[in-house]
Amino acid sequence: MVNWKNFDELKSYGKLADTSRISLKKVLAGEKGAERVECMSVPMACGLSFNYAARPVDDAILKILSELAAEAELPEKFQELYNGAVINTGEKRLVLHHLTRGQLGSDVIADGVNKREFYETQQKKIAEFAEKVHAGEIVNEAGEKFTTVVQIGIGGSDLGPRAMYIALENWARKYGKLKMEAKFISNVDPDDASAVLASIDLPHSIFVLVSKSGTTLETLTNESFVKNALKEAGLDPSKHMAAVTSETSPLAKSSDYLAAFFMDDYIGGRYSSTSAVGGAVLSLAFGADVFAEFLSGAAEADKAAAEKDPMKNAAMLDALIGVYERNFLGMENTAVLPYSQALSRFPAHLQQLDMESNGKSVNRFGEPVNYVTGPVIFGEPGTNGQHSFYQLLHQGKTVIPLQFIGFRNSQIGNDLDIQGSTSQQKLCANVAAQIIAFACGKEDENRNKNFEGERPSSIIIGDDLNPASLGALLAHFENKVMFQGFIWNINSFDQEGVQLGKVLAKRVLAHETEGALSVYSRLLGI
Amino acid sequence: MVNWKNFDELKSYGKLADTSRISLKKVLAGEKGAERVECMSVPMACGLSFNYAARPVDDAILKILSELAAEAELPEKFQELYNGAVINTGEKRLVLHHLTRGQLGSDVIADGVNKREFYETQQKKIAEFAEKVHAGEIVNEAGEKFTTVVQIGIGGSDLGPRAMYIALENWARKYGKLKMEAKFISNVDPDDASAVLASIDLPHSIFVLVSKSGTTLETLTNESFVKNALKEAGLDPSKHMAAVTSETSPLAKSSDYLAAFFMDDYIGGRYSSTSAVGGAVLSLAFGADVFAEFLSGAAEADKAAAEKDPMKNAAMLDALIGVYERNFLGMENTAVLPYSQALSRFPAHLQQLDMESNGKSVNRFGEPVNYVTGPVIFGEPGTNGQHSFYQLLHQGKTVIPLQFIGFRNSQIGNDLDIQGSTSQQKLCANVAAQIIAFACGKEDENRNKNFEGERPSSIIIGDDLNPASLGALLAHFENKVMFQGFIWNINSFDQEGVQLGKVLAKRVLAHETEGALSVYSRLLGI
Repeated sequence: MVNWKNFDELKSYGKLADTSRISLKKVLAGEKGAERVECMSVPMACGLSFNYAARPVDDAILKILSELAAEAELPEKFQELYNGAVINTGEKRLVLHHLTRGQLGSDVIADGVNKREFYETQQKKIAEFAEKVHAGEIVNEAGEKFTTVVQIGIGGSDLGPRAMYIALENWARKYGKLKMEAKFISNVDPDDASAVLASIDLPHSIFVLVSKSGTTLETLTNESFVKNALKEAGLDPSKHMAAVTSETSPLAKSSDYLAAFFMDDYIGGRYSSTSAVGGAVLSLAFGADVFAEFLSGAAEADKAAAEKDPMKNAAMLDALIGVYERNFLGMENTAVLPYSQALSRFPAHLQQLDMESNGKSVNRFGEPVNYVTGPVIFGEPGTNGQHSFYQLLHQGKTVIPLQFIGFRNSQIGNDLDIQGSTSQQKLCANVAAQIIAFACGKEDENRNKNFEGERPSSIIIGDDLNPASLGALLAHFENKVMFQGFIWNINSFDQEGVQLGKVLAKRVLAHETEGALSVYSRLLGI
Repeated sequence: MVNWKNFDELKSYGKLADTSRISLKKVLAGEKGAERVECMSVPMACGLSFNYAARPVDDAILKILSELAAEAELPEKFQELYNGAVINTGEKRLVLHHLTRGQLGSDVIADGVNKREFYETQQKKIAEFAEKVHAGEIVNEAGEKFTTVVQIGIGGSDLGPRAMYIALENWARKYGKLKMEAKFISNVDPDDASAVLASIDLPHSIFVLVSKSGTTLETLTNESFVKNALKEAGLDPSKHMAAVTSETSPLAKSSDYLAAFFMDDYIGGRYSSTSAVGGAVLSLAFGADVFAEFLSGAAEADKAAAEKDPMKNAAMLDALIGVYERNFLGMENTAVLPYSQALSRFPAHLQQLDMESNGKSVNRFGEPVNYVTGPVIFGEPGTNGQHSFYQLLHQGKTVIPLQFIGFRNSQIGNDLDIQGSTSQQKLCANVAAQIIAFACGKEDENRNKNFEGERPSSIIIGDDLNPASLGALLAHFENKVMFQGFIWNINSFDQEGVQLGKVLAKRVLAHETEGALSVYSRLLGI
């Protein structure tokens, strides 16, 4: 059995507090700097690599971080997790999203079934369903093929699948894999559903309703909204809707749906892109074979995350260095900066993944912790961000660690040589330049043009963004967040912080308010 | 003449440091709390109001903040700015974006012309051009009407106009004002231009190239990319392109464009939505009358920002309280949370506006300052964010001030009563509930379900999001950022922090690198 101890009870915590800060400017200078960039790289799944030469660590700090990994029993805790321990202590649940894409350990039996088999069965059901839709065996009332899939979900049922769809849409177009266009309805703002409904060919659209509990306010409201629109168009909603839900939810056996695909309580919403939640919409959009490639990339990254030596485990190393920056260098934020337009919504997904998992103030036993936990995550794709918030990143009073992502090749491959370089080369040149600009700065007598440098970053580099490398990228960050949660001794798999707002909103709608809340409600026209 | 002093040289700085923190839980409790919400509201332009009852201030703190406003000479500095002083000290430029939408003070003569007249002339030129395009007087090679407008620009030439377009697209559809669909190409990633080009009807598309200097790498690269695509389709680029640039740029008198509209050095990119930069694409998309309404809303907000009493000036008050939270309560971030799907990219625009303006470490004379300056800005629309990063906002170790925005009515007006309330009511109920949940929290013996509260927020409330209120909203934040820059004694109107990366990227493309940078370049395939 592993020991769950608070971070500040570990010997390595004290040792890390005693380390002295390294200067990136110094360690990245000259030949030694070049060597550092060569050496400080860990191979990841699917040909990706994690380069941390511009993170603020040296051999001494890395040695203590390795001790921390051992002392916090990170490999053993991951093992417990994938072997089916009750890691989600708050809700007393197993944490099984890794099983949706592979089997790392022993069979996990829960609720009387082998969970790997359960997830595989759902994938097969989805694959068959998608194939029938694509083949014109499942058709609309007029016997015509569906051309569009619309996901109705919010939070984890929206951000991850949406980010993944956007990441692969152009790739799929290029390789003739775009079977159906996908759209997403999430916000309870009626303008969201209205705008999406106005943009699609309703008679040829199939809707995937995603709610684990079958009770999410926004999702059920938007379902009614969509059903109403279908009826008004003279269409039969039950011929246009599938559900992704838990077996025990009211949606599971309803005749309102063409089909129901199941997830369970062991898959948190923000970890559900590789479950039926991502599987249904992505298999309909791109075909089940593309979704399978995506899963295989994630599985390969999981395997890499099971490596015990943190110096060979990119997710663990990323987590350890991030904790050092957060807890000992006082850095409150992390920016995610993919140099790939296809990853435009990937930062929004990581924002949920990380902030909802590790934005906690109590440990896994419900006791307050005396150290800071999860950072604020934000980001936009480069080079766009360079012309926006990078000013603060370079010259502001706040130092923010940066997570760059870059690919050697563009996705569509349509490019032009302009003034001696292609657009893709310009893109890659910019990210290389930014790493050095942030780390090394540049002195200038005019203080307004002076760059202090010492701003840390790492970069994940790959050849191409495709289904497999996307899966690996996703799993890298999921596993990084998990390891950080282990170090902070918090439960990264519940989200009690979202409950109070829901309770109060219900009270407002029931007009059961008083005091300040009733005034705010009135001001907002309720 | 006004005095430019560092913030920590002001008497009110010391006084603010001595204030004791108020408890939002206490001040928002009971009848007094209800009264507080009623009272702490400032009317804004276009029927909007700014409610700051859940910000951590009381009469004593507000009194010192008012003293600060006077001591820092905020109204006088704004006056200097709009009367044409060289407020942008770094680049020795006037700061005239307010003149694009109205005349607050005396005539501003620069470069031998009356600048208000200059901006108005450009607007008229744009209006005439847009009218001819809409009327089919300016047509493509085949004599057919243009149906789509594509903006090519990055940073301020992209984020603001794009956010404004998205904010008004559904409104325009509803009121029959959508004359042309707009698209945007920004990233140098070739996949960005490729995907946009693949999604449009090229023969019926008109491109607006936006670059003040006429030298922006990304924009010129994308221009070549688009021109190439037009030529390959057998089209004449000069019949499909207009330019927005400065009169002195190489683009200004080129025969490559149908027309050229001018901005100048006195309009910073991030402040350019109300200039020709936003004007061309928005007038083509919605008609010049809609753009004029947008400008009138911004002008009304500017007028409100010229009010001397900070207690009656929402932008100034928002700025003052924000500085208090940043410098004395140690809050490093601000989240922008619009409860309106139409404002989905408004936070991304404010991220640039704020972080590029105030992410500085030196004062306007180039001397390092000893206090923190601009915060990190991030945000997503509600209710989506509730199911994402709100966990950290509610229960994380980091307290983040929140700027809510809400409207009583939806934009499209298509809504349904489901379980006793409409979607719009559910949306508004949620934002009201969140304010109280964040501020007041809720005790629970189970610490995992405990909410400490004391998390500050304000809300801007309006009836409808339309061109005028959108303009007012935009100007509110522009003016807030300006006032904060005045308080911090920094130059909010230059962006030297973006230069170093550009210089190094050029070196990479010219293969003039050594050491660490050359290794990074090689790893990225250059």
